[in-house]
Amino acid sequence: MGSLVALGGGHGLSATLRAGRMVADHVTAVVTVADDGGSSGRLRRELDILPPGDLRMALCALAADDDEHQRLTSLFQHRYGGTGALAGHAVGNLVFAGFWELLGDPVKALEAVGSILGVTGRVLPMSPVALDIAAEVVGLEADPRVVRTIIGQVAVATTPGSVRRVRLIPADPPAADGVVEAIDSADMVVLGPGSWFTSVIPNMLVPEIAAALARTSATRALVLNLAPQHGETAGFSAEQHLHVLRQHAPEVDVDVILVDPRMPLSGTEREHLDRAAAGLGARVMVADIARTSSDGTMRPVHDPALLARALAATVRTGADE
Amino acid sequence: MGSLVALGGGHGLSATLRAGRMVADHVTAVVTVADDGGSSGRLRRELDILPPGDLRMALCALAADDDEHQRLTSLFQHRYGGTGALAGHAVGNLVFAGFWELLGDPVKALEAVGSILGVTGRVLPMSPVALDIAAEVVGLEADPRVVRTIIGQVAVATTPGSVRRVRLIPADPPAADGVVEAIDSADMVVLGPGSWFTSVIPNMLVPEIAAALARTSATRALVLNLAPQHGETAGFSAEQHLHVLRQHAPEVDVDVILVDPRMPLSGTEREHLDRAAAGLGARVMVADIARTSSDGTMRPVHDPALLARALAATVRTGADE
Repeated sequence: MGSLVALGGGHGLSATLRAGRMVADHVTAVVTVADDGGSSGRLRRELDILPPGDLRMALCALAADDDEHQRLTSLFQHRYGGTGALAGHAVGNLVFAGFWELLGDPVKALEAVGSILGVTGRVLPMSPVALDIAAEVVGLEADPRVVRTIIGQVAVATTPGSVRRVRLIPADPPAADGVVEAIDSADMVVLGPGSWFTSVIPNMLVPEIAAALARTSATRALVLNLAPQHGETAGFSAEQHLHVLRQHAPEVDVDVILVDPRMPLSGTEREHLDRAAAGLGARVMVADIARTSSDGTMRPVHDPALLARALAATVRTGADE
Repeated sequence: MGSLVALGGGHGLSATLRAGRMVADHVTAVVTVADDGGSSGRLRRELDILPPGDLRMALCALAADDDEHQRLTSLFQHRYGGTGALAGHAVGNLVFAGFWELLGDPVKALEAVGSILGVTGRVLPMSPVALDIAAEVVGLEADPRVVRTIIGQVAVATTPGSVRRVRLIPADPPAADGVVEAIDSADMVVLGPGSWFTSVIPNMLVPEIAAALARTSATRALVLNLAPQHGETAGFSAEQHLHVLRQHAPEVDVDVILVDPRMPLSGTEREHLDRAAAGLGARVMVADIARTSSDGTMRPVHDPALLARALAATVRTGADE
């Protein structure tokens, strides 16, 4: 296919980018910029920049394959050791921060870092504004009906309570330059996998992105997580993932939802999933997309090559319909 | 000429490297690694690495000329702003530190950074060991005969006293791999300009480097500073620069000493300089090597193109003798 846009953050986005570059001539990553933890959190507070960690991971996923660029990719992913001021910072985050200061613009800085890594494709922040995630969470107090607001990606991702809804601070941020155009002209848009409330859904809370996702003629594929995540979606069924997506982005339909046949779905759960998918306008496509461990069982990690094959198939079968 | 080796540190070394690449097919920088101030000092203390600042400056002086590599060179020279843990660190210092951690070796890390910058030639630390400079200084107490020991490059470079002698801690460190071979096989070796006690002389205090400088068949050129430096050599005449060099490296002769005709040398000073040069086995060569300011006076900064022409001339006239 011509062009693919993948939205999200973290390892989930890296997996779809690695898959996407196998099937599309041009890949654009639209990266959630709400991280407030670790190296990213320190840098956004210290230098007033977008949190660079998820942007760096996306760039590394699109880096050129040759030895020299892969050595640079390893460097950019490397975290300083020691016990001092640098400990835990990823080298690539600091390079991005340096380019931002030097060039005065996050998109130019991303292009400059991308050029060092021989990136094919493009990495864009979802918004030029650094964001925070606020969540309505229940189950934190003795009375299970009490709703508490939890603020910050780390706090939300690790809450022992149950997340009901998330919003962005500031609300309704603008999309970054290039994001809407990329979605409008894409052949395929991929949502997920990833931390649902803190990586996947935040993109839908940028009004221009939600509108572009609603109107694009691209095939919209949703890749579900292979296993429940601790913290923010602990105990969530596949169906519940779709419900909260619909709740946060009522106007965004999805065309196809990818699941692995080895995901532990009981008969009832599969029925509920099909029904929730229909509510989004989507069909469920079952395909081997997870890695297999040495004992033959499914590992809860997407295999880029398998995911690529499945994504290509969704377009083919989509065209047949 | 075939190969040129320049020894020193800081801006002085950068000037000879920029000149050297214009006249030699292959340039090797041998860089003093005793800095304990600023970004370099913080990194050597925090991560137990060689102070990277002078190494970074040498790499940047040898970086490829095209726009993309020069943009990266600007990034590597950029220092973070803000008021936090990164403030003042040069980006390139952090990249070097990251490569060192990743590759486990300073010379490999320098090659990796050099490859990003498209460096032609090679940058080597003078020693694989991070060093400190200790100086015997007089004039710090009421009794001018009292000798105090001052330790650390920053402290020595800025002492209000008068430096008599410097030594390295630890004493007699090994030369880094490749340094001796480079000097042995060089067509020209360039010493200076630069901070005399803290950048130029420390190389002579590495026994293997002093021995290689003593026996090499290369033309040994010494580039004097254009103006007295504040601090460590305040008030030093050109002659005194040569005396302290001889005192610290009795076995190292020099073939030619480069001075600019506009350097403020009185008739007596010029006589003393010639005599001190003869003591080193050197002749004094007068050539325009400094930049000219808009009002026609000499700026105390070496012009790489002029310095290159003068260095090339020393080899030619050397061959005539």
